[in-house]
Amino acid sequence: MSLEGRFDEDDGVVRVGDNARQRFYDSRGYGYPLEGNEIALAPVEAAHLLFRGDLAAIVDGDDRLDFQSFVAREPGTDFGVRFLVYADLRSRGFYLSPAAEPWVANPPDADFAVFPRGKGPTDGEIEYPLRVLGERTDVPASALSAGVLAVVDEESEITYFEVGRRDPSGDSATALPERCEAALLADRVVVWEPPLALYEETFYGQPLEGREYDRPTLQCSLLEATYLAEQGAIDLDPATVRERGRDVEGERFDRRLRVYTELRERGVVPKTGYKFGADFRTYATVDSVDDLGHSELLVRVHPADAVFEPRDLALDVRLAHGVRKTMVFALVGDDGIEWWSIERVTP
Amino acid sequence: MSLEGRFDEDDGVVRVGDNARQRFYDSRGYGYPLEGNEIALAPVEAAHLLFRGDLAAIVDGDDRLDFQSFVAREPGTDFGVRFLVYADLRSRGFYLSPAAEPWVANPPDADFAVFPRGKGPTDGEIEYPLRVLGERTDVPASALSAGVLAVVDEESEITYFEVGRRDPSGDSATALPERCEAALLADRVVVWEPPLALYEETFYGQPLEGREYDRPTLQCSLLEATYLAEQGAIDLDPATVRERGRDVEGERFDRRLRVYTELRERGVVPKTGYKFGADFRTYATVDSVDDLGHSELLVRVHPADAVFEPRDLALDVRLAHGVRKTMVFALVGDDGIEWWSIERVTP
Repeated sequence: MSLEGRFDEDDGVVRVGDNARQRFYDSRGYGYPLEGNEIALAPVEAAHLLFRGDLAAIVDGDDRLDFQSFVAREPGTDFGVRFLVYADLRSRGFYLSPAAEPWVANPPDADFAVFPRGKGPTDGEIEYPLRVLGERTDVPASALSAGVLAVVDEESEITYFEVGRRDPSGDSATALPERCEAALLADRVVVWEPPLALYEETFYGQPLEGREYDRPTLQCSLLEATYLAEQGAIDLDPATVRERGRDVEGERFDRRLRVYTELRERGVVPKTGYKFGADFRTYATVDSVDDLGHSELLVRVHPADAVFEPRDLALDVRLAHGVRKTMVFALVGDDGIEWWSIERVTP
Repeated sequence: MSLEGRFDEDDGVVRVGDNARQRFYDSRGYGYPLEGNEIALAPVEAAHLLFRGDLAAIVDGDDRLDFQSFVAREPGTDFGVRFLVYADLRSRGFYLSPAAEPWVANPPDADFAVFPRGKGPTDGEIEYPLRVLGERTDVPASALSAGVLAVVDEESEITYFEVGRRDPSGDSATALPERCEAALLADRVVVWEPPLALYEETFYGQPLEGREYDRPTLQCSLLEATYLAEQGAIDLDPATVRERGRDVEGERFDRRLRVYTELRERGVVPKTGYKFGADFRTYATVDSVDDLGHSELLVRVHPADAVFEPRDLALDVRLAHGVRKTMVFALVGDDGIEWWSIERVTP
């Protein structure tokens, strides 16, 4: 027997009586219970029951709405994309509720609370908070939070991203030589015949091909060179090299230098991520370049007040996944660096 | 015996006498011949011979310059990156000359002319024009030209891209139904129960999961819907759908619609490229969605006056390569659309 719901304008919910509590809430995790057997459904829950034919209609005053007319009158972009994600997770066998009282106690700051497979809103356990975005909705970096992000593209396909904190750490070699001879060229630095270990063990620079290998001539980026100059490892004035970096890259240079420096201080070796469109690729354990492992992370440096387009995020994460690395955003603010990893997941 | 060169300030070349013609020009393709056995070298050629120890020094007035001092005095970013690319191609066994008279006749508009393997400047054959860029040098779309682009990153690694024209074409099914019932939602269109062929054969929209499959409910993007409305296939006013597209995306929408329309008219099926960070992925031959092949191209839409950062270009091309597709830029101008493919190559 198909039930009907009644739209309750005051609370913005759809009330269903009869055996709704047992049928929809107890056994399938829709809505929250009211008096007796009545339950209240969020519009997205009511739309899903309409869509499946479990509700015959929703009555609102004189209107009797079917799925088509109920969806057509819901305003705004959000309802559409939230419905699609709700329906997708339901079809994958998960129960989820709006992240709000009284659907769930102590709701997370998100759109939905997704429950562990086989569990529902009465089991007191949340698998992850879920946020839903259309592909054209920008995401301020400051709004990143741990959980899952579902992005709905213009053709209604859904991509899920797991977002979490990720502090890089490593135990790479750190010993440096002292005051090697170096020359500042236009946008790079050449270190003339430093000890081989500068390249071989600590992985600074890139040897100029065809030179004697045991005293290589190393080309270093301005970031590497600024750091090396600050450490006294090359005989250039750090301020001069840093100034050149700013000339070439603008304020981005200082941001990248802070991330470069912190990575080095954490025992992680950053090398350019240019070929991957990122700022750095990183190696957590470098003892010898001859025995270099796979680089684990791609790091993109952003100011703490950056705003992401989901489209760029998809591109970054897809690429990182394709090369078996994890995408990490380094958000540089006045108080330090926040590190966030973003990975594609299948719920 | 090591020779010395003399810097000729008037012509900006390095002159080398003695047996230089035979030793450097005839047998190894450096420079161009002057009177007798003398040759003239471009600074990048002279630097390479210095670097290899084939020239002992370059004399300029009272100065006697070795590689280190010759490189250090060359001004600007360009010399450094051009030298690195020149040396890299030489080490791969190719001869190349500056793309200028009198090094080569009818020089292409580029930095270097690269000769086929085993050939040199006297053989009258150019394998490809080569342009060299630092990773921070922007490329205006209008400056794209067929040939190879070498991008030198901040750590002096080189990536080669092959750039060429690429007009997409295909022979996908095109028959459309008439005036199907459809509803314009916030940023997508739902087509209620159209003939299955609209999805199955011509690959418009995305079926809403869980509905009857023989009369699917299709969600279409605003691009798909505008095109379908213009073709009379759905009962919406094309101007209204287009207006919604502009509200949601701004002027980008019209640009993408032009590319979408031209692809459809060329028998190619464009679907969203969101998951790849592109505007479209395309299928050249769609007869049935059940039998869908691999999508061949990733298309990014740009205005004809766009400016690329080599870093973004690297990201796009790397990603396309990783998913076995070719990256194509559609440059939309007043006179039509130019299609350019960009692929990574190893010389």
